Amino acid sequence: MEVLNVQMTNPCENYPSLNMDEKYEIKINNSSGLLLASSIWGILRGLETFSQLIYLETDGSTFVIRRTSIVDYPKFRHRGFLLDTSRHYFPIESITKTLDAMSYSKMNVFHWHIVDDQSFPYQSSAFPNLSERGAFGKSAIYTKDDVKRVIEHAKLRGIRVIPEFDTPGHSLSWGLGGIPGLLTECSDPNQFGPIDPTVEGNYDFIRTLFSEVSELFQDNYLHLGGDEVDNSCWTTNKKVQNFMHRNNIKNVVELKDYYFANIFNITRSLKTVPIVWEEIFDDNIHLDPNAVVHVWKDSYDYSILSKVMKSGHPALFSSCWYLNYIKYGADWTNFYRCDPTSEVGDNRLFLGGSACMWGEFVDETNLLPRTWPRTSAVAEVLWSYTLNETEAKYRIEEHVCRMRRRGIPAQPANGPSYCHY
Amino acid sequence: MEVLNVQMTNPCENYPSLNMDEKYEIKINNSSGLLLASSIWGILRGLETFSQLIYLETDGSTFVIRRTSIVDYPKFRHRGFLLDTSRHYFPIESITKTLDAMSYSKMNVFHWHIVDDQSFPYQSSAFPNLSERGAFGKSAIYTKDDVKRVIEHAKLRGIRVIPEFDTPGHSLSWGLGGIPGLLTECSDPNQFGPIDPTVEGNYDFIRTLFSEVSELFQDNYLHLGGDEVDNSCWTTNKKVQNFMHRNNIKNVVELKDYYFANIFNITRSLKTVPIVWEEIFDDNIHLDPNAVVHVWKDSYDYSILSKVMKSGHPALFSSCWYLNYIKYGADWTNFYRCDPTSEVGDNRLFLGGSACMWGEFVDETNLLPRTWPRTSAVAEVLWSYTLNETEAKYRIEEHVCRMRRRGIPAQPANGPSYCHY
Repeated sequence: MEVLNVQMTNPCENYPSLNMDEKYEIKINNSSGLLLASSIWGILRGLETFSQLIYLETDGSTFVIRRTSIVDYPKFRHRGFLLDTSRHYFPIESITKTLDAMSYSKMNVFHWHIVDDQSFPYQSSAFPNLSERGAFGKSAIYTKDDVKRVIEHAKLRGIRVIPEFDTPGHSLSWGLGGIPGLLTECSDPNQFGPIDPTVEGNYDFIRTLFSEVSELFQDNYLHLGGDEVDNSCWTTNKKVQNFMHRNNIKNVVELKDYYFANIFNITRSLKTVPIVWEEIFDDNIHLDPNAVVHVWKDSYDYSILSKVMKSGHPALFSSCWYLNYIKYGADWTNFYRCDPTSEVGDNRLFLGGSACMWGEFVDETNLLPRTWPRTSAVAEVLWSYTLNETEAKYRIEEHVCRMRRRGIPAQPANGPSYCHY
Repeated sequence: MEVLNVQMTNPCENYPSLNMDEKYEIKINNSSGLLLASSIWGILRGLETFSQLIYLETDGSTFVIRRTSIVDYPKFRHRGFLLDTSRHYFPIESITKTLDAMSYSKMNVFHWHIVDDQSFPYQSSAFPNLSERGAFGKSAIYTKDDVKRVIEHAKLRGIRVIPEFDTPGHSLSWGLGGIPGLLTECSDPNQFGPIDPTVEGNYDFIRTLFSEVSELFQDNYLHLGGDEVDNSCWTTNKKVQNFMHRNNIKNVVELKDYYFANIFNITRSLKTVPIVWEEIFDDNIHLDPNAVVHVWKDSYDYSILSKVMKSGHPALFSSCWYLNYIKYGADWTNFYRCDPTSEVGDNRLFLGGSACMWGEFVDETNLLPRTWPRTSAVAEVLWSYTLNETEAKYRIEEHVCRMRRRGIPAQPANGPSYCHY
């Protein structure tokens, strides 16, 4: 083969989106190849496939490619990877390498769980004290330029970056940032609970922060979290109790409902589509009509997905794709065997899902080998219409060596192995 | 403090040994410090401790050290780390970094499980085809110079290097090396079993190989393996059966006994102390009087250690220190809680043990973070007379940052964390 002709039939889009067209066709003849796609995103996916069609002959002397004809497109629109940068701080290099590896498996959403209880590495221009006081240290901060670098690196690989600012729980580190009254005071004066939903100023703060965030992160989705809210400080705080009484709010679920009504007002005004973790749906909180529900509980109970979609909300799934849980051996099969397809059918409200690398026991030393190639198993479940574990076993073995050649320290997949090239 | 005076009272020894003296004393006064040891090995351990006594003040401006007085020596003489370089090949850099990290935890034996079924990376000058054909590839070979580099790097850190050439099983890769009749033919002509104990020439081969090995690896111990011998090809091979009949060998255990009688003859003639895995003892194989038994089965049954020592043989222990087995969370505690001390008392025949990193799912991408700081928990069990998990938790957290500063990518130990310096 001498040349690959690349044809794109529609104008270039500037930023990837949920509905981007990733379909592509490849035809390889004796003398030339054709890559055809309507959008730049299809071209990117097709180029990735093209690069994977090329093999070294066994003696290492010649690159070969077979005649072939491919029409390919993803099964699900949202094929994400969540990284938690709060429990440990990751240098930008760890993130850009992760984005590279994602593109090698055709993943298209980087879900950046950027802050949490443990640290607040996001540097806000409106509220610089959030990171100044809430980050682990001066060298553990994501500046605006860092964030822009990540977004640009992702965009060039057809990857959206969706940040998560998880509230009202998971926000202890926010409380160090000098926003008076942000967190609920607990009965122990040294303890603080979730964001105080009774303080009007807190919504102004969040509006300003989210406004800045949604402008910086070009994607029109914003993950609002909402999981694992510890209500105990709400129920023991007199001011909160008085507020509930005054406003006829009967219990903490209604208080959470009140909180999210305010938050959804903010996201609507910012023209941002909110994503929330499953609990918000489970608790029957009134959702924004466009809100996406991200299912993460009960690893093998897919039925919650149907419930979400019956309620008219799009669903994302992560329950059995928690990469932070490790097991001895070829554990990629556990991720591969988890496929919610039978439950969701071809319901357009099922957007796909994300593999999640929560950061408690992961930092820059072990992130990349622990993430790859295990995450590629999830990527295949989310892309491919037919799954075949026996074939996938060889594919993932080869993919490890491919990633290694490309600078990603992917760990062994199946046992003893050696990358000949 | 201005100066550390170092006093060594005995002449320098050239190579570390099982009985090297690692005791040291440190006295830190206001203006000066004293490090006192009889041997260079004590000096090395003392310097390591001295380096760990130095702290940065919390504002990062000044190094401080407290007045203190320390007398310290190890509980056990053999504090090892096993690396399996057959299931995956490790570049020399991975090994030297491992040796560095070992010295930071005062470990003193690198047990190099250098070859196995899957590959034969050791380059023999007498039998170059063993690695030429048995290694994974041309870039997956340890040359003599590589081995010397490892031994020298280890020696300078007071670490012995004990190679393991595991026979008669675990030797499939040996069979590619063109030694005719080395492996037992199985009923399936494409299958091969353990080394054929009935072929006289095989002992000549092993004598030549072990002679070369024991000269290259300066230590006077040699690990002979002997574990997990699959007898099925011995029992189905007519030639072997005839040999047994002719020589009045009644069963495969007696055949193994015959094999090891020959092997022990070889090690005796080489003035090398043999180490064997537990099975050889369990099977009542006649041991060389000096043979060390390495216990690795039944994680929490320490009683086998007493049996070994009652029989007059020194014992090594690894059963519950298999680092290749991974678990979510702070799993160093599982290694820390495993302490055979109550069973062995102060019996001089208990030499210590090794943490083992078997290589099926580990290669250069994940070796160092997966090994450290988990291995440091084993190191503390083997060095310290008093164990305290609560204190160790903080110690290991600090040790992670210390290793990180020294270029070892040690992974998080206990959960969310950040190394301030």
